[in-house]
Formats: sequence, C-alpha cells, structure tokens
Amino acid sequence: MRKVLAFDLGGTKFAFGVVNEDGSLLGSGRVETFADKGPAQACERVAEAAHRLLAELGLRPVDFVAIGIASPGPLDMARGCVDGSPNLPGWTGFSITEFLSNSFGGLPARIDNDCNAAALGEYRFGAGKGRKNVVYITVSTGIGGGAVIDGRLMRGANGNAAELGHIPLTMDGPSCGCGNPGCWEVYASGTAIARRTREALAAGRPSSILKFAGSLDQVTTHHLFQAMAEGDALANEIWAESINYLGRGLGAVINIFNPDVIVVGGGVTAAGDALFVPMRKSAAQYAFPRLSAVCSIVPAGLGGEVGVVGAAACALEGAQEK
Amino acid sequence: MRKVLAFDLGGTKFAFGVVNEDGSLLGSGRVETFADKGPAQACERVAEAAHRLLAELGLRPVDFVAIGIASPGPLDMARGCVDGSPNLPGWTGFSITEFLSNSFGGLPARIDNDCNAAALGEYRFGAGKGRKNVVYITVSTGIGGGAVIDGRLMRGANGNAAELGHIPLTMDGPSCGCGNPGCWEVYASGTAIARRTREALAAGRPSSILKFAGSLDQVTTHHLFQAMAEGDALANEIWAESINYLGRGLGAVINIFNPDVIVVGGGVTAAGDALFVPMRKSAAQYAFPRLSAVCSIVPAGLGGEVGVVGAAACALEGAQEK
Repeated sequence: MRKVLAFDLGGTKFAFGVVNEDGSLLGSGRVETFADKGPAQACERVAEAAHRLLAELGLRPVDFVAIGIASPGPLDMARGCVDGSPNLPGWTGFSITEFLSNSFGGLPARIDNDCNAAALGEYRFGAGKGRKNVVYITVSTGIGGGAVIDGRLMRGANGNAAELGHIPLTMDGPSCGCGNPGCWEVYASGTAIARRTREALAAGRPSSILKFAGSLDQVTTHHLFQAMAEGDALANEIWAESINYLGRGLGAVINIFNPDVIVVGGGVTAAGDALFVPMRKSAAQYAFPRLSAVCSIVPAGLGGEVGVVGAAACALEGAQEK
Repeated sequence: MRKVLAFDLGGTKFAFGVVNEDGSLLGSGRVETFADKGPAQACERVAEAAHRLLAELGLRPVDFVAIGIASPGPLDMARGCVDGSPNLPGWTGFSITEFLSNSFGGLPARIDNDCNAAALGEYRFGAGKGRKNVVYITVSTGIGGGAVIDGRLMRGANGNAAELGHIPLTMDGPSCGCGNPGCWEVYASGTAIARRTREALAAGRPSSILKFAGSLDQVTTHHLFQAMAEGDALANEIWAESINYLGRGLGAVINIFNPDVIVVGGGVTAAGDALFVPMRKSAAQYAFPRLSAVCSIVPAGLGGEVGVVGAAACALEGAQEK
C-alpha cells in the first residue's frame, strides 16, 4: 500500500505521521513548534522526530510516494512557504516543502492550507466519504473552511480558497482579524462565543457562568455549557444567539456550494447534539429548501488527526495526478 | 464543427440559437414566453420557431450533438424541469428537456441554471477565457452567480449551486425574496438600488432624479446615472453606498472562491467605468490582499447572447463527457 509522510504545522504543535493510502495511520508524533524561534529549528526538530518514527517502523524515505504538509494560510504554494500567517511570525519565505523534501531523500513535497487539507481528508477518509460535494467547517479559535467540489479539492487561483469564516454577517459588527467588520467568525467562532459571553457578564447580567470560570477573563465556551446544564438563562440566551449566527453562516454555505454534506469540526463541536440539533434547524431556515433538503450537517470523522490525514490526502491526490 | 441547439428560457422571452463548438452563433431568434399560459404552449412555439431557423440554415436535428437549455432556478435537473421558479408559475414538473428532445429527433437535452450556464459560457467563450477559476455575477433584477472551479462548472449536489445573491450582508436588513433578511441582492441588485433611491426620495431628500424619472414609481438606476452626470448629491451618495454593498459581496466572493477572475454582467454594468473602477477598489478592501491581488473584475464578454451560448457550453461539456 502506498504511504505518505504527512506533517501538520500549527502555531503551537508540529505534528507528523505515516499515513497509508487508505487513510490509516501507521504511526504519529508531534513536537513543539516554538513558532517565534523561526522555521529552521522547528523543521529540523520535526524532521528528526519523523526520522526516529521511520526507524521504529522499519521504513525509509524510498518507501513513501510523497510528503504532504498542512499549514495555516495564507500560503505561497508554488514556493512551499507560509506567507504572512499571523501565528507563524518570521516564517514567510522559508520553503517548508524544500526543507522536508531535502530531509527525506528528495521525496516530492506539497503544502496545502490546513482547512483545505482537512476537507479533502474528511472527503476521502472521514465523515464525507462517499459524497461528491463536501464542505468542511472548523469552529474553534476562528472559523475555517474547505470545499471539495464534485470530488476535487477547491484550491482556487493560488491555493487560498474557502476563507469561509469571512463570509459577512453584518456591515458594521465587531472587527475581524482580517480587517473587516462583521465576519461570520467574529460572531460564531469559539473565541467569539466566549467574547460575547464575557461582554454580557461585564455588562452585569446575572449568571452562574462566572462560578464555573472563576474570573471574567477565564470564561470559555466550556463554562457556558456547564452553566447551560444548570439551566442558566444568560448561558441559554448566548447559546441560542450563537446557534442563530452559526445557522446563518451555514445557510449561506449551503446556498453557495449546494453541498451533499457539511462536516463540522473544531472545539465547539464538543457540545455534540446540543450544537448539531438546533444548528441544523437554523441552517435550514437560512437556506433554499431544495438545497438544504439534500445537505446533511454532520460532526467531523477524523478528530485530532485530521491535519495529518488531510495533508496525506492532498499529497496522494498529487501523486495520483502524475 | 460540432453544433448545439441552445435555448434560454426567461419569464418574458424564450430565446434560441444554433451555436458552433467555438461559441459562435450561426443564427438565433426568440419568442414571447407568456409564462402564465404554462409550459406546453411556450415550448411548442419555441420549437416551431427553432425548426424554422434550422430550415433557413439548411440544418436538420442530426447535424447537432445536443440540445442545451438555460433556465431560471431552482431546477430539477434529473427530470429536466423548473421546480418552483417564481417567474414561471405552473411550469414545475413539466420536462422541458423531454419536450425539446422529442421535438428534435431525440437529441440528448440538458437543462442548467441560467447563471451557471452563463458562468461556463464566459469561461469558455467570453471574458473568462483562458482562466481556470471564473466566477460570474449578474447584477440586474436580482444578483445571480455561477462558478467554474479549476475548469469545471460547479453544479453542486442537485444543480443549484452558486446562489451568490443570497450571501448575507446583514442579519436584520430588508426582506429578500428567499425569505431571509439582508441578502446581498436586497442591497445591491438593480432593483435594490432603485428601491433605495425611491426610499430616499420619498423621505423628502432633494434631488434631480425625479426630474429624469417623471414620478417616484418610475425611478430606475438609469435615472440615477442621469442625475449623477449632473453632480446630484443624493444620486452620488446612493451610488457610493451601492458600490460599497457590491464591494462587500464581491470581497466575500473573492475570499470564498479565490478566483482568477470575476465576470460581472447584468443591466447595472451599463454604467461602465463609473461602476467597475470604484467597485474593484471596494472589493479589494473587503478581501484578503493575497487573494484580491490575483483576481481581476471585468465586464461580461458575451452580452445578450450569454444565455444561449452558456446553454450550448453546458451541452457541449456533457457531449464531451460521453
């Protein structure tokens, strides 16, 4: 079975794994990124750790068809670099593909946006398997997206397609990191839900949320869920608003892509049915009936390994094209 | 050269043409739809007129590879029907593909959403020629869209993808025909610009627009342009707002698709540079720099024949797949 050596670069962790062409993981590991120390040291350490894994598994670079790398965008795919990613300062212009290719016997290496890689991973091996049109949405620090259209990953003109967290919800809302007001992710990401909760508490709204969080600046969506379990009114109100924002964005995604399935991952999905049941209803309300009727909204299937497995799916796709 | 017999169904006109595989038109015509009299009479009359055109051109059904039909959505592509289109009452369930196929010697017939067909037409033969990722936007009564992703038309799960006019701009704006508040098209379509103009005039704002329109209910974007040419302050203000709304939506389109080019058609583009120059600037402001840097925004290349030529492009694509 063909194998890919896959990497998942993040601002905190740099994960890697040996992935079979059926999506199964033969082995994996991770190192700290220490992003602010620059790319060379992180790439050296991850390559060293991956070489140890290969030795443990009795594999050599020649046993692989390709190297796949998932990374936060924006990317310069042609040069194999990140290009101005806020969580990877000083990395712009360093060719991660070249470094890792050189470290592993000249294997062909490709880099893809991590959410796009996740979309292809979920399409090939996860919750989107068997469907042709799959949109992946992650709701966590921000909202990220990726889209597989009729069985092919949508990369766009320069590999940066599917910035779905920046679909507008308002013209004059809170400022987004992208510089615009009112993007979807400033209302409905995990960070945004926590921020809106803190704002409501700071405005003096009574609630048990603070009891769980300890102090205002510690509040996360986790404490919101704890308070909801007690029937806290403010927590329920903020959650209902969040569902409405999530549904408005997902409704737009349905109208834009007419997908067979939207796969939703990220920390907020830990809420399970408390999220998915009302969110499906809200999304359907904001989409054309003929489009929402054919679109399922389901939890991600690949869990924490989505980055590594997605990177492998991208590299396998490239290897198939040859 | 392969030929397609192409039809472009609208609520008012039912156009048809003989299209070569290079996109050139050998001949064309149109009949009135009289949509409220139902589909059978309209399809009979258009088939009769198309048969006359074929006779004039010395062609028979056997000289064609396929029939292509562009129609307002939503569609039931499998059955070849419109399915609940507001401007075609009573048409739901009538198989236009079957009728026209039977009328022309059993030629294979396919139906596509008119904006999707236009996107493929502009990609193959128009302003998107030579680019791989092409989004088509029409700004007229509403805002419609279509997307060609890496050289292939995005149809979605059931042929209804790219309802781009329903990207949200606000959560609480004017009601859209789709049932939601604040969609892009309720702010920035030709109809919406005229409505916002009438609202401002009805609120008593002084302006020369009324002089050109005659009465409030006659106001269109055309009168807005006439007043702008005189330096009318209200007209300039409404136009600037419209550009801002158009830019916000186009910025979202850039962030969603990372296209090489956005081709803009529809009545509002009659404004020419007065539209395109500020609209490009506004769109760039609302999109990621790395994505807007590679995306041109250009006027449509196919003009009034975009429906017929687009329908032909869709049918040719299907014929190639065989």
